[in-house]
Amino acid sequence: MTKTLRVAIALCLVAGVIFLVGETRNISAASRAEKDIRDVLDRQVQAWNRRDLEGFMRGYWHSSHLTFYSGGTMVSGWEETLTRYRNRYQSAGNEMGTLEFRDMKIELLGPRAAFVRGRFHLKMSSTEPSGIFTLTFRKFADGWKIIHDHTSTATG
Amino acid sequence: MTKTLRVAIALCLVAGVIFLVGETRNISAASRAEKDIRDVLDRQVQAWNRRDLEGFMRGYWHSSHLTFYSGGTMVSGWEETLTRYRNRYQSAGNEMGTLEFRDMKIELLGPRAAFVRGRFHLKMSSTEPSGIFTLTFRKFADGWKIIHDHTSTATG
Repeated sequence: MTKTLRVAIALCLVAGVIFLVGETRNISAASRAEKDIRDVLDRQVQAWNRRDLEGFMRGYWHSSHLTFYSGGTMVSGWEETLTRYRNRYQSAGNEMGTLEFRDMKIELLGPRAAFVRGRFHLKMSSTEPSGIFTLTFRKFADGWKIIHDHTSTATG
Repeated sequence: MTKTLRVAIALCLVAGVIFLVGETRNISAASRAEKDIRDVLDRQVQAWNRRDLEGFMRGYWHSSHLTFYSGGTMVSGWEETLTRYRNRYQSAGNEMGTLEFRDMKIELLGPRAAFVRGRFHLKMSSTEPSGIFTLTFRKFADGWKIIHDHTSTATG
């Protein structure tokens, strides 16, 4: 074996190792992001089920640019979204029920963006409303946050 | 002025120019992406308004993984989405009307992903249905395509 060939083989091996390390890092960054997003949603469900709407809202971007679309209606802003939830689930005659997210599909769109498709299911004392959602996530300095929510049900 | 100082100033200037060129390139790549996405949506509207549903469907990812959520219902697949549109707008007793997209907000989520919020308005012979949508886009070898559509109206 010539010296040149030995050097070439060594260089290929080094390049291969660098490539594999890079790939592994990408895969682990992706699965880490997926886990972090799932944690945000799990914490939302836990907060909802202890009647803690502010805790639930921690999953949303605390910004006037947050948007919440539901049944043809647009709401802009974190405060306005919280007000909508309060009016709908904590005002007289309403209940929060027990929340469950099902069939979640988390898809990364880049290192700092993702979207999630899924179903929600609420167990109330006499009804069980359910529907589907699309959540757009961005990664901020303090973690992954929903920047846009589009929810729909068979009735709007 | 010492030689070292002159060299330092020259290096700073070069670094500044490199930074500005990079920034300009990022901005122009972003506005290019936005224009391309707007073109996809404009072509969809034009196709719809000449009753060309296949042309309209060219804006969607031609894949069994395309998802279309509307009023609490999930449809998976490009063919299935086309069938839904056919049943809803081209079957007996139905009409396609004149489509318009309004208040579109295109937001990039990375170099190859974006999402679009907007309203649709249909002018039929006797009614004018309207609603809101969230579109998730990915950039493929043949351009930007909608990979997920979530649409809702006040009636579902």
